[in-house]
Amino acid sequence: MKKLYGIGVGPGDPDLLTIKGKKIMNTVDVLLCPVKKEGDISYAYEIIESHLENKEVEIKEVVYPMHYNQKSLEEYWKENGEMITELINSGKSCAFITLGDPTLYSTFMYTLPFVNVAECDIEIIPGITSFSAVASELNQALTKWDESLKIMPVQRQTKEELVKRLEKEDNIILMKPSRNSKPIVEALKSLGLEKNFKMITKVGRETSVIVSDIDVLENQEVPYLSTMLIKKGGFRD
Amino acid sequence: MKKLYGIGVGPGDPDLLTIKGKKIMNTVDVLLCPVKKEGDISYAYEIIESHLENKEVEIKEVVYPMHYNQKSLEEYWKENGEMITELINSGKSCAFITLGDPTLYSTFMYTLPFVNVAECDIEIIPGITSFSAVASELNQALTKWDESLKIMPVQRQTKEELVKRLEKEDNIILMKPSRNSKPIVEALKSLGLEKNFKMITKVGRETSVIVSDIDVLENQEVPYLSTMLIKKGGFRD
Repeated sequence: MKKLYGIGVGPGDPDLLTIKGKKIMNTVDVLLCPVKKEGDISYAYEIIESHLENKEVEIKEVVYPMHYNQKSLEEYWKENGEMITELINSGKSCAFITLGDPTLYSTFMYTLPFVNVAECDIEIIPGITSFSAVASELNQALTKWDESLKIMPVQRQTKEELVKRLEKEDNIILMKPSRNSKPIVEALKSLGLEKNFKMITKVGRETSVIVSDIDVLENQEVPYLSTMLIKKGGFRD
Repeated sequence: MKKLYGIGVGPGDPDLLTIKGKKIMNTVDVLLCPVKKEGDISYAYEIIESHLENKEVEIKEVVYPMHYNQKSLEEYWKENGEMITELINSGKSCAFITLGDPTLYSTFMYTLPFVNVAECDIEIIPGITSFSAVASELNQALTKWDESLKIMPVQRQTKEELVKRLEKEDNIILMKPSRNSKPIVEALKSLGLEKNFKMITKVGRETSVIVSDIDVLENQEVPYLSTMLIKKGGFRD
């Protein structure tokens, strides 16, 4: 049976890869590694590199530029989908590695509809999400008892839109706050939640940074690979 | 330094344990395994048993009964917290294993405030969540593009309360639907979402069951260890 895997490599710490993910990436013919542009280093690949013991596995870049124009991105999904289709049809098993978990906002799931192979078994291996890692790093529960958690991507929302969405939630994860950090600061202030957020950039890496001061947040360019946790009930000591 | 770990063992497939979780559980003195009552088999322990290679590790039950009376449960958190405190003060490193991820509704986080050890380093190792595993098993994205995801525990909500909460969300995960399944069925029908849900019981185990037929859902006792995904936009083929 032809085989395509989507493997979540987790948020950054190489040892947060699952045992299953490690096993599979060492048995496939081709490991597909997303990069922002040709020749770039793949962050997902950097994470799992130390666990790649089978030197026969072919490493192949798949290019996904870092912008949010859906129409233009679709061209890349299509192109990469066709490339993966060809690889699989030539008899090669493939594993596509993706940061965090493949089922949450991953390019793998965007590309999948363009993979057009007859009788191909597709298997997704879940990964540790950035928000579980953020909460773990902070020694904080994401949710307790009857609380809920809302996971929300930051897009071009205005302060007012954010206020409306944030005010009703117990706990919120903002994914990719780097896209639009100014309205986030304004919304937090407007809701009196200046002390109720923590943001981690590159969680699980040596270069990780925690920000919990609203002034610091306000006066910096929020880096890519940041995740913000907002807790209405506050953080425990 | 005295050390207490909380390790997420994932939802059921032993190989969805992280490499980090496996390493740590093989180096501690005591592995704390939650059970519903004394002498029971710990489901979390069953999941990781095949990865426990160090036979020196002491396995210790921690009892948490399966009901939702917070006052009575607090007695158990306190008692278990004191037991863990004693173990750590006697010089033993401990790892508490927990189903799924420790930061989401876990007894470990409820117990932590009752662990009272001077200068103890507490480290949480995130685990694969049941909902990532459910979406992976179904080959479905939990979220795409600008969609959000709401994670919500099922409590004693009425149909009306559920309708009010479900109607505004793109994607919803209902945790522990076994607690109160009748109002869920009614809410799904009332919102015209009869075909927009899938529920998996014991995801990742050989005995796992998928339910996506509203009549089946309506006419069964929903088992413990079930997770339901509701997608407003429907499921892709």
